[in-house]
Formats: sequence, C-alpha cells, structure tokens
Amino acid sequence: MNVDNIQIQSHNDKLSSSHHRKFSALKEDWSSTLIDQTLQKLIDFQIAIPSWALGTGGTRFGRFAITGGEPRTLAEKIADVGLLHRLNAASDAISLHIPWDVPEDINEIKKSAEGYGLAFDAVNSNTFQDQPDALLSYKFGSLQHVDKAVRNQAIAHNIEVIKQGQALGSKALTVWLADGSCFPGQLNFRNAFQNTLDSLQQIYAALPSDWKLYVEYKAFEPNFYSTTIGDWGQSLLLANKLGDQAKTLVDLGHHLPNANIEQIVSLLLMEGKLAGFHFNDSKYGDDDLTAGSIKPYQLFLIFNELVEGMDAAGMNHAKNLGWMIDASHNVKDPLEDLLQSVEGIMIAYAQALMIDRAALTQAQQNNDVALAQEVLQHTFRTDFRPLVAEARQRAGAALSPIHLYRELKCREQLIMERGKTTTATGL
Amino acid sequence: MNVDNIQIQSHNDKLSSSHHRKFSALKEDWSSTLIDQTLQKLIDFQIAIPSWALGTGGTRFGRFAITGGEPRTLAEKIADVGLLHRLNAASDAISLHIPWDVPEDINEIKKSAEGYGLAFDAVNSNTFQDQPDALLSYKFGSLQHVDKAVRNQAIAHNIEVIKQGQALGSKALTVWLADGSCFPGQLNFRNAFQNTLDSLQQIYAALPSDWKLYVEYKAFEPNFYSTTIGDWGQSLLLANKLGDQAKTLVDLGHHLPNANIEQIVSLLLMEGKLAGFHFNDSKYGDDDLTAGSIKPYQLFLIFNELVEGMDAAGMNHAKNLGWMIDASHNVKDPLEDLLQSVEGIMIAYAQALMIDRAALTQAQQNNDVALAQEVLQHTFRTDFRPLVAEARQRAGAALSPIHLYRELKCREQLIMERGKTTTATGL
Amino acid sequence: MNVDNIQIQSHNDKLSSSHHRKFSALKEDWSSTLIDQTLQKLIDFQIAIPSWALGTGGTRFGRFAITGGEPRTLAEKIADVGLLHRLNAASDAISLHIPWDVPEDINEIKKSAEGYGLAFDAVNSNTFQDQPDALLSYKFGSLQHVDKAVRNQAIAHNIEVIKQGQALGSKALTVWLADGSCFPGQLNFRNAFQNTLDSLQQIYAALPSDWKLYVEYKAFEPNFYSTTIGDWGQSLLLANKLGDQAKTLVDLGHHLPNANIEQIVSLLLMEGKLAGFHFNDSKYGDDDLTAGSIKPYQLFLIFNELVEGMDAAGMNHAKNLGWMIDASHNVKDPLEDLLQSVEGIMIAYAQALMIDRAALTQAQQNNDVALAQEVLQHTFRTDFRPLVAEARQRAGAALSPIHLYRELKCREQLIMERGKTTTATGL
Amino acid sequence: MNVDNIQIQSHNDKLSSSHHRKFSALKEDWSSTLIDQTLQKLIDFQIAIPSWALGTGGTRFGRFAITGGEPRTLAEKIADVGLLHRLNAASDAISLHIPWDVPEDINEIKKSAEGYGLAFDAVNSNTFQDQPDALLSYKFGSLQHVDKAVRNQAIAHNIEVIKQGQALGSKALTVWLADGSCFPGQLNFRNAFQNTLDSLQQIYAALPSDWKLYVEYKAFEPNFYSTTIGDWGQSLLLANKLGDQAKTLVDLGHHLPNANIEQIVSLLLMEGKLAGFHFNDSKYGDDDLTAGSIKPYQLFLIFNELVEGMDAAGMNHAKNLGWMIDASHNVKDPLEDLLQSVEGIMIAYAQALMIDRAALTQAQQNNDVALAQEVLQHTFRTDFRPLVAEARQRAGAALSPIHLYRELKCREQLIMERGKTTTATGL
Repeated sequence: MNVDNIQIQSHNDKLSSSHHRKFSALKEDWSSTLIDQTLQKLIDFQIAIPSWALGTGGTRFGRFAITGGEPRTLAEKIADVGLLHRLNAASDAISLHIPWDVPEDINEIKKSAEGYGLAFDAVNSNTFQDQPDALLSYKFGSLQHVDKAVRNQAIAHNIEVIKQGQALGSKALTVWLADGSCFPGQLNFRNAFQNTLDSLQQIYAALPSDWKLYVEYKAFEPNFYSTTIGDWGQSLLLANKLGDQAKTLVDLGHHLPNANIEQIVSLLLMEGKLAGFHFNDSKYGDDDLTAGSIKPYQLFLIFNELVEGMDAAGMNHAKNLGWMIDASHNVKDPLEDLLQSVEGIMIAYAQALMIDRAALTQAQQNNDVALAQEVLQHTFRTDFRPLVAEARQRAGAALSPIHLYRELKCREQLIMERGKTTTATGL
Repeated sequence: MNVDNIQIQSHNDKLSSSHHRKFSALKEDWSSTLIDQTLQKLIDFQIAIPSWALGTGGTRFGRFAITGGEPRTLAEKIADVGLLHRLNAASDAISLHIPWDVPEDINEIKKSAEGYGLAFDAVNSNTFQDQPDALLSYKFGSLQHVDKAVRNQAIAHNIEVIKQGQALGSKALTVWLADGSCFPGQLNFRNAFQNTLDSLQQIYAALPSDWKLYVEYKAFEPNFYSTTIGDWGQSLLLANKLGDQAKTLVDLGHHLPNANIEQIVSLLLMEGKLAGFHFNDSKYGDDDLTAGSIKPYQLFLIFNELVEGMDAAGMNHAKNLGWMIDASHNVKDPLEDLLQSVEGIMIAYAQALMIDRAALTQAQQNNDVALAQEVLQHTFRTDFRPLVAEARQRAGAALSPIHLYRELKCREQLIMERGKTTTATGL
Repeated sequence: MNVDNIQIQSHNDKLSSSHHRKFSALKEDWSSTLIDQTLQKLIDFQIAIPSWALGTGGTRFGRFAITGGEPRTLAEKIADVGLLHRLNAASDAISLHIPWDVPEDINEIKKSAEGYGLAFDAVNSNTFQDQPDALLSYKFGSLQHVDKAVRNQAIAHNIEVIKQGQALGSKALTVWLADGSCFPGQLNFRNAFQNTLDSLQQIYAALPSDWKLYVEYKAFEPNFYSTTIGDWGQSLLLANKLGDQAKTLVDLGHHLPNANIEQIVSLLLMEGKLAGFHFNDSKYGDDDLTAGSIKPYQLFLIFNELVEGMDAAGMNHAKNLGWMIDASHNVKDPLEDLLQSVEGIMIAYAQALMIDRAALTQAQQNNDVALAQEVLQHTFRTDFRPLVAEARQRAGAALSPIHLYRELKCREQLIMERGKTTTATGL
Repeated sequence: MNVDNIQIQSHNDKLSSSHHRKFSALKEDWSSTLIDQTLQKLIDFQIAIPSWALGTGGTRFGRFAITGGEPRTLAEKIADVGLLHRLNAASDAISLHIPWDVPEDINEIKKSAEGYGLAFDAVNSNTFQDQPDALLSYKFGSLQHVDKAVRNQAIAHNIEVIKQGQALGSKALTVWLADGSCFPGQLNFRNAFQNTLDSLQQIYAALPSDWKLYVEYKAFEPNFYSTTIGDWGQSLLLANKLGDQAKTLVDLGHHLPNANIEQIVSLLLMEGKLAGFHFNDSKYGDDDLTAGSIKPYQLFLIFNELVEGMDAAGMNHAKNLGWMIDASHNVKDPLEDLLQSVEGIMIAYAQALMIDRAALTQAQQNNDVALAQEVLQHTFRTDFRPLVAEARQRAGAALSPIHLYRELKCREQLIMERGKTTTATGL
C-alpha cells in the first residue's frame, strides 16, 4: 500500500481554498513570528510508532474480530508506519519490541525503513511475559526476582535488546517492568527495589555511551497489590542512582486516579530527568485509548509544561526527548487510531506553542488567577488545526490524513494485500 | 455599581470588526440554519446564580483575605447578579439559600430583582448547619435523624423555605442533605434511608402543585464514611417513590473518581427524572472550581447528552430543567469567576448544539468509532466563542463580559460603595 | 485425587486439643446460644465455585507458567470443586460458564456432581467473547448492539444457556455484559440501555418460573469509556423493569474507587432486589484477588449489612441469595486460593453473626458513634476462626483445609494424574 | 480532672481475671520470648497528641454542636493529654501548633507538662491561614509565594516556631504547606518548587543541630488543582536537597485514591528519610478519621513495613521516628476518639511485632504467595488486645482506657470544670 505525491497533492488541492481561508484567518489574530516558529516546530516534531500498536488490541477477556490486513512481519509493520508517515509526515520512527520484532536480516530491515524515511526509536525489552523457549519464568518478577538466576536471564535479555538496537541505530532502551506483587506479604519491597536497582545497574553498564536508559513507572496492572517501579518518585530514585544516561519515562495511563501529571512533568524537566513520553489517554487505568480522546485539556496542560520546561532548559523540542504513542486499538482500525492520536498530540503541542507566555508569566507574578486561566483557555479554545494542517502540507503530507486514508481505501487495500485474517504480534 | 447601555455599546463597538470577522468565518463552514437556531437557544439559555457564591469562599482550613466589596445584604447580592446579567444576559435568576437570605421585605426584594430583570430560581434549604436559634442539632443528620423531633424540625424548616419561595415566585425546592455517617456502625443505612424518605414525603406533601422538588446527591463530604443520598441511584429511588414532582439534581462535583457523569445524565433524562444541574468543575472531590476550568471536554460531553436527550424528549432547553452554578471562589474575584463559569458553560452548550447529529447517529449505527470521535471532536475543536458572543450582543449584553468588567473597574467600584472588609454570607 | 474420612479425621485429631482449647476460650466470653446459632449458620452457608476459577489466570499481558494439574474437562472441574468441598464442606455447588463448560453427557455430569455432593449453581452466559463458530461478532456489544441480528444471536445464546441450566438443575441465569463503549460518541447511551432492556425482556420471558435472572453491573473494563450496566442504579433500574425474578448481582470488584459497597448492599436488600454476590477483593479495579486479602474489614462490614438486612427481611441466609466466588489466580495455586477465599468469607460471616446487635442498635439510637465503633470492632478483633473450624469439623470436614491440602500433597497428586501442562478453560 | 492510681487499680482489678485468662491463652500459642519483647516495645511506644485535636472538629460546612468541656487554654490542653496518658500510658508528648498554642509563661507550661509526664513533640508552623495581625496574606502560598516578602514572612514565622520549640524542649519542626494552586496556569510549578526549596533552606539553616525538619506532603486540599509538596517523591526530593536533618513525614490521609502507602513507607525507610507519621484513617481524602476505623488491615501492613524496615536499619522503634495522631473529631468526644486511635495503632503495632518473620521471609524467598498471606493473616486475625492491655497495665495504666474514661464520667467532669460552651482552638 503506497501513497504517492500525486495522491497527496490531489487531496490537498481539493481542500486548498478552505484551508487557506482558515489559515489566513488565524494570521489576523496571532503574531506571524509566533506562527512561523510554531509551524517549524510542528514540522520538526516527530512521534514514534510502536511496532505492537499496528494490530487490533485486546483485553484480558480476549480479542475481538480483527480489522483485517494487519502486518504479518516486521517488514509489513515498517510499511504501515511508512504509510502513516507518508500521510502525516509526523512519525519518522518505529519503536521495536524484542522479541516480537527480532529482525532476521538487519540490513534489509534498515534499508526498508530508510526507504520510508524511518529511523528506529527506543527499543523495548519484554520481561512481562515468558517466551516459549525461556528457561526461567517471570511469573514472580524479572529484575526484582528473589532468584538471581532469573534476574540474570532478564538482564541478559535486556543486554541482547541493546545489541539488537545498536545494529538498527536505536539510541535508547525502554525498560517497563511488570514486576510487583498481587498480595500483601508476597514481596519484601526493599529487597525488590534493591534487586531491581542492581539489575538495572548491570544493564546500564552495558549501555553504549550515546544511549539513554528510559525507566518507566506504572501504578498498577498486571500486578494488583504493588508495582516495584510504581510512581515517578520510584523511577527518579532509580534513575538518580543509575547515572546521567538514565531518565524517567512518563506514560499517561500509568498513574493513580486524579494524579496531576503536568506537575510531575514539570518537576522531571527541572531535574533534567525526563526521558520522554508514551502518549495515550484513559479514564480509569492504563486504558490505552487514543491520545486526546478523553481529556484533551489535560494533554494541552502537559504540553504547556513541556514547552515551558524545555525552553527554560534550552532543549530542542524534537530531539532531546523521546516521543512515542503507546495505545491499544480494540474497536478502531489501528492505523486510523494512530492518525487520530498523532493529530490530538499535534493540536495540543500547537496550542502550547501559541500560548502568550509573557502574559501568562505576568498573570502568575500578579497572582491574577482569573487572567492566567483566560490566557490558557484563549489558546486552548482557539482552533489551531489549520496550523497543524499547514505544517503537514509544508512537509509534503496530507492536509487531512484520516480523510485521505479513507478516500484511498487504504485498509481495503491492505486487506487485499495481506488477507482478512492476519494478526500482528503485540497486545 | 451600574453598567448602562452606552458603556456596553462602546465596548462592543471597539470589538465589533474583529468579532464580525470571526463570526462571518464561522458562517462559511456551518449551516446558517443551525447557526441561527443555536443563537436563539444561546439567547434563551439562562443560568441561575446562587446567592452564596457572591463572596470569597473558603475551605475547612479557613478563608483567606477577601476580595473586598462583597455584598452585605440580600439586596446587594441581587445587585451583583444584576450586574452579571447586565454584562452577559445569561443569568436572569438568583437562587436563594434559607436562612442566609431571608428577605425582610418581600415586596421590596421582588421589586429590586425585577429592576434587574431577575427572577427567583429554586430555593435551597439548609439542614447541614445548626442555626444559632435552633432547638435541636443536625450533628447526626436532619431528615435521616433517629430522633423524630429532629426530623420534624428539619421538615418544618423545608416547608418554611417553600413558603419563602412561594412569596418570591420560585418554583422549586432544592434539598441537599449532608446526612450520612463518619464511621462504620454509626448508621443503620436502611433506617436512615427510610427516615429520609418519610421526611421527604412530608415535605413533598407541602409542595405547591406547580413546584418541583430537586433531590441532590453527593458521594462524600462533609460525612466521610457514608452519605445517605450518595449517588444518582439513591436519589432516583427516592424521586420515584415521592412522585412526579420529585427529580434528581446533578452537581458535577458530587461523584466518585472517574464516574461517567454524561451517562448518568442521559439515563436520568430517559427516565424523565433529571431536575437540572449545579455546574462547577473539580479534580479531586467537590472542589467547586469554575465550570470548564479542569475538564472542559467532559462538560461538552455532558451537554451533548443534554441536548440529545432533551430534544429526544421534546423538551424546552431553557425552561424544563434547572440550571445553576454552584461554585466557590477561594482565589478569584467571585464575579469574575462567575463570568468565567457562565462562559465555559455557554461554550459547551454551543458546541453541543452545533454537533452534526445526523453524522454522529450514522457513525453510531455503523459502529464507526473513529468517525464518531471525528464528529464530536470536530465540533469541540472549532472555536464557537464568536457564536456565544453574537448571542450575547443580540441580547443587549457585552461581547466580552470579563473584559468589560475589568475595563469598568467594577470591583474597585464595589469596594468604594461597600468597603474593603465586607463579607457575604455563604461558604 | 480423593480425600477420605480417615485422612480428615487424622488431620483433625492432630489439631484437636489446640482447637478445643481455643473454641472453649470463646465460649467463656460469648453467649452459647449465639455460638450455637452461628455454628449452624456457618454449616449451612455454602459458596459456589465458578468453573472458570480452577485454572491459573492471566491478565491482558498474558498468562504465566501454570500450576500444573489443571482440570482438562468439565468432569475434572467438578472433581476439583468436589475436593474443595471435601476439605471445607463449604462449597456444595459449581457455577458453570457456557460455552466453556457445555456438558456432553448431561446425566453423567449430574451423576458425577452428585457423587461429590455438588449441585449446579447459577449458569453464566458469555457474550463478551466471540466463539469460533459465531456468525456475528460482539465487538460492539451484544444485548445493546445497534444491529438487531447481533442482539438476537446474544438472546438466543442466553436462552440456550437457560436450557443447559435446566437440564443440570440450576435455578438462575447470571448475565454479565461487557457491553459499553471505549470512546465518547461511540454509543447512544439511551439506545444502548433500551436495547439491553429489550433483549433482557426476551431472555426474561424464557426464564422458568422458579428461576432468577441475576443482572450484574461493572464500572469499567473491558470497555474503558462507558459500561452499559455500569453501576447498581442501572442494574436496579433494569431489574425493576424486568420483574420480580430479576435481581441485582454485586461483584465486589466492580465499583469506582472508594465506593461504599456495604451501603449499596443494604439498600438492595431493602428493595428486595439483591441477587447475591461474586466475592473477591481488589485494590485498583476488578483485580479478582482472594476474598479478604486486601480489605478484610470491608468484607466484614458487608456481611454486617447482609446479616442485618436478611434478618430484617426474614430471609434464609443460606438459601435466599446466591453466593459465589469470582476470582482469578495468577500467582497462587487456584485451589489454595479458593480455600483462602472461602476461609476469608466464612470468618467475615462469623464475625457479622457474632455482633451484639442489641448493643449496636442502642448505640445507633443514641448517636453514640464511639460506642458503635467499639461494638463492631470488638467483634472484628475477636478471633472467631475456632468457630469457623468447629463448624467445619461438625460438617465432617477439615479443621484447617489449606494445611490438609498441603499435607496430602493434593497439587502434586493432581499433576501426577493430569500432567504438568494441562490448561483449564477460563480467563 | 485527675485520675489516680486507686481508680486505675480498681478498674484493673475488676477486669483482672478475664484479662488474665485471655493473656494466658495467648501464651499457649506464641513464643514467650516474642511476647516479652513485644510487651516491652508496646510499653516504650508513645504516640504524641496534637494540641489541635482536643476540641470538636468541623468541615468547610461548619462545626456542629461541641462536646462541652473543651480545653480553653494551652494548660488545659496539656491537662487533657495528661489525662489520656494517665489512662493509656501511651501518649507521653504533646505536639504544639504555633500560633494557636504560644505559651505565655514557658516555665509554667513546661512544669505543668512535666507534672503529667509529658514532653513536647515536634512543633508545627502554620502558614495555611492568615493571622489577624499578619502584614501579608498566604492566600497564594507561603514558602512558594512569587513575592519574596511573603516568603520572608513565612520563613520568619517558621524560625520563630523553632525558637518556641527550643524553649519547650522540642526536637523537630513539622512543616505542612497548603501551598499549591486551584487552577491550571495559576502557578509555574518549577518556580513554586524552587521558591519552596529556597525558603526551606533558610529555615533549615536556622535549625539547631540536634533537630529534625519534617517535610509533610499532601495530594490535595485545600488547593484543588496542584499542591507544591504533593507526594512522597516531591518531599523526598526536597529532603535530599536540604540535608540529613530533613526527612519526609507521612500522613495516612494525604494520598491519591488506592495508593500503596506501605510501599512508600518501606522505601523511605530504605533511604533513611522517613521522619515519622501522622496517624488517622480515611475513605475518600484527608478525612481525618480515627486510626484503624476504616482500613485496619492497611494500618497493620504499614506497621509490618515499619517494624521490618526499622529492624533492618537497626533503629529504635520508639525513639528514631516521630509518631503522632492527626485526626479531627466531628462526631465523637475528642478524648474518646483519641483513645480509640491509640488503641487501633497499638493493636496494629502489636500484630506487626508478632509476625513470624522467619516464616514470612521463607515464603517470600520461595514465592509461596499463599503461605505469605497465611503468615500475615494468621497474625492479623489473632486477637492481640490482651497483649496491648497487659503492656498498659505494666506501665501503670488502665486495662481498658475508654471504659474507664466512661466509668469515671471524665467528660461530665470536664464540662463541670470548664463549662459546656468552651471551644478549643484548632480545625
């Protein structure tokens, strides 16, 4: 399934006059300098797609009828991300999961990715499942395990993942651990933490000097009493003990009810310890819904902190942090869902970039709370979709990716190519 | 503090060309019939202001420095609401709380309200505090109390409130009970419920035939183990046992974490049992923050259900339900906060009115989840503030009420009139 | 794997003097009448075991290494429940799930169950998964579905389950629906509710006159935005519209954070609409942990309401409601976990039976909150395990079932009989 | 109101034979060494009483009818704590709140306290309220405030509190800040954190070398969008930046829903950064209910971690951490409530001390989750109240303090002494 320039051009032409009108209207009210800067930042901003998010997802109650045309191989996964990137010019990397995506022929895979303009983002280890050929089980944890042999197996796996990543050109290892406990008394929390730290130190020692180690945290699930890296405080503690290359990764769905995530983001940036993001949305837990589909204002507030904090630290928005979607698609076409997530993220980012920072700072200095709210909400309520679309157009992509995806009957095409009953590896 | 037509006209004139441009832009993309219908509905839609929300609020840790110029009397409270209504033409009623607002001279108060174009919305009883002259205490509940004498005192108070309301022209009694328990074992839940039902039945018997009884529910606070009318199910059970004039009142802050309020709203409308709303916003509990300040998308989704459900039932949006703000203003000027709440509500209502219902229904029929989301978010992401402003202008009010409030230095004026240290009754 | 009387007797003999000492000590402080009544009620109280809880459970991230010796057939599942019942004399019924447990030869299965002294509890339909041979998918719901053909398929399935249950001697159908939505806009809540009601009415019409229909509710999961029967209010609304044979089933893990479940139980009993219970425990969501493992005091408070409410209504504790465990065993031997759940439930029930009701009522009447707490906690803090053990002994079972299970090396025996890699159907 | 030895002796004599029987029964089943060690630790363990918890509490909706006989002066507060300590020999210190409890005559106050055998625990500053004579308001924060002058006022206040504490013999300053924000945009989180750190550093610099600085955290309330020291991670970050004398204080009610507090406790002990505890219980938020009244198993699990972690670090249970109750008494006699809290805490501590640590560790090493649960629950289910009573008796106090309090009609006596309408300062 390829989309060519002519198809994109034709789509954009159809929408051109309407888009032009709306984009021009924005220019009436907002500084052209700010608009231009924002456009460039939107063009530069790229969100990696995880290889496990290209198929229909499920829950513990099972997986329903698949969408059809799901990628059967790593090559086809790369092709899917390539298609997304072709449509929105915003996903120039794929994040692989080992062992679901071990490449058989590294060079071929790299060439294929290059053909789509894709790089390899952080690689992800998996010690939350037992692999068919595994000697030891992770049923009672991996890096935390009371048995050193199990820890060693998990450490070796992580080091192997680093090697796979090096061959592909990745620059970071993401470690998400399901380690924890289901019942009071099951774990000695302190030993579990110390074992985890010790294991991570060994993995860290194997980290190439230009790599980062992303330490993810999660409040609960699949363990239902405790999680050994359960909140940002625990992750930061580990990252500080590990060293400069270790950072804390934030997944939006990994918090207790009512958590103020934007404040956490701000503090991690302050400490120089924010690794990046796994984007999704949720109402109850790690629901892995489309980014911006449940709490778009929260997403905006998070980007407000990201922009403010990255600028304060002189960071490059596009390059200094890791941006990835981590969602599950149980009731939507996975590719449409990903297009919607990227769109939701881009809108939030654009809104955050357009905030009148001087006015906001002034209101904060004056404790003028009503005005601070006016400043934020004025930006949030403004429709910046034309800005996002313009950035996309300038990058050679579609003004409206999801519409073009439907117009071109991409899913039908994929089904023809791959069949109706293929299933992608993943959750 | 009066605002006259010339001041409003002058303010609107200044914003006129910018407003005209934005309003016209909307007309390019949206059906003019829909826009006209929406404008009329926005003009008709009125949100009552509670008399207790005109002063600086506090928490159990105390109340901080007040804003100054707070209303000292019921007459001044009416004047404050009159000022709001003059600015936004969206708050044509005041909701009184008895005994904080017992009018000394009914006729004078009614005349004063009429002068501002204000009616008297639902009256509110108070059995969550002991009054200085009370014989019996509500420490262990009021309508639920194990002691019939306490219940009778509370019933008599509610009937007295109805009488006060009748004199003023109100048409509904809102009963919010703090009744519940702080510790396991304190209450027999069933007896507490039956006592409450019995008490409400006696109040209901005293209700004029053209009145409604609004039964409010709340998950927790000020009782911290159980609340006797704790959720919509309990309120609906009571309302059904009471009769047609009894309905369930929804306060947005009165739910457990993560509750799907919009679904509750839909079902109450389905049952013909929705009384109306107490609008506010919250992150943790009954935080009583400005409507739309924390979860504006949720507010939109609630209005989506309201519009859909009221239309399905052939209801008049403006007249068949009770709309009121119930917020507390701890860190903002109360009048600015109320202007922001009304604006947040109006925007959500406008967005809900502008939803392409045919497209949404079609997507639902096709289980096209991605498209359903596109339809909703397209409307939410569109900036309909020009529509809200246009409606306001047509109703003779200000294009931007909060800006005019500041331009005219209303608070400074009120401080001059009333002094810096006045305190309004309320929470 | 059979346990015979001699083995039980020998186990009990070993513990006899210690048990006798502790049981006698209780008699020093508690009324012998109350003890005798409690013993009889404990003997009569039986908790059904679901057929899907006999194997190792999993989460959406997969299932870890199994325990070994898991039942491969319905006959072996019945044998497992028979073993539990032999050990604790408290689980005289099995609750089947269709289609996981469709009996091939009804008579043989019934005879086998009778051999273990087991009856067939409520049968459970499954429309939360697609079966291999299904024509239509439940991806977008079953009884709520927009497509009447899907609803009809689900209705027919439920009616088929009733027929299977009739053949086995069951007297109730439990309907748990995963129906709901993952995204705002996906569902019309009202239509979903009405479709569900209409479907349930058709199932209800097929219900034998001596059957009950248990309508279960759940706040979230596997749908992550809305659940169509999401709370007790929605279930009660449906049960009331359906008729006398329909009741509301409470699963302890199916609530929003911080819900006061004991109050819900009390009110459902008051309305004559409590169907019964699915017991488990949880910290975050539907964690399906061992009953009493996380919040044993809550379990006690629930039984306090059950005992009080059933007695007030003149109900037979053992016969008028449905009692079942619904847990998942991810890190424990399933049979040990079930023994622990039953023990936790029995202790809570015993404690609730031993409450000094007259003293509690008196304290409530006097609003003596401190004393009410003393009464409840005095009972909760007393060690009534000797009472539970005595009841078990009198019923011919083991004083300490889990210890006997380990002494007899039951799991090792099952592994020898069935192999190490068998897997039971279920979640 | 004094209680003398004869009254205590007479009370104990009445209960003596029953107590002796129960205490002896415990000795049948538990190691006498362990019992003796536990008795000594229970005797040594002392829980400070906050001066603000001696009067009837309230909520933001007001305070109901008081109990009568509330302490009117600091001297009377000390007398109340003296009475508690006389009854239970478990509260040998009072924690003062400045400025509610500024002693006029230090020597007299110290002598009075000594007379009751009381020391002065941590002193508490208050920047969550404006004092009548304050120049600047804390409406928008204190140590976080954007205005250096406000911060300086708050710093000076804290230093003044240290001085008051030094005169009294206190050894720690507890800083709880209400600082935070009510609305998105109100605060720059990073600046708020840095200002807070800078302010704390100045306070820390004024700390005597044998003092500790307790940094308390709280998830929400009275600020409803963000709290600047909002969780243990933020508190630990500050404590680490401040130095060795700074530690993190845990208040049980200051967490988000479902938080695993026992894990936090374990990790803070691991880091050598646990300051101590504010005990209370809660269902929804900072409900400030009696310790052990809602989640007694959680309290036990917390003490399990405390005992395990303090022992692993070679700490003295009674002396190395700060133990205090922080509760509010809205519906109970404050003194009875405090007696119940201390009892709840002592029971949990006794249970934790009696855990078979070797067996638990063994089960953990074997990943024998069912057995680990058995070990914990065996201890929790055992009735160790006779142990707690015995420790009390050996320390010269009452076997059943709350019963003696009622027998001696202490409250009636206090009302006679102080009158029915006195009100204690506090919340």
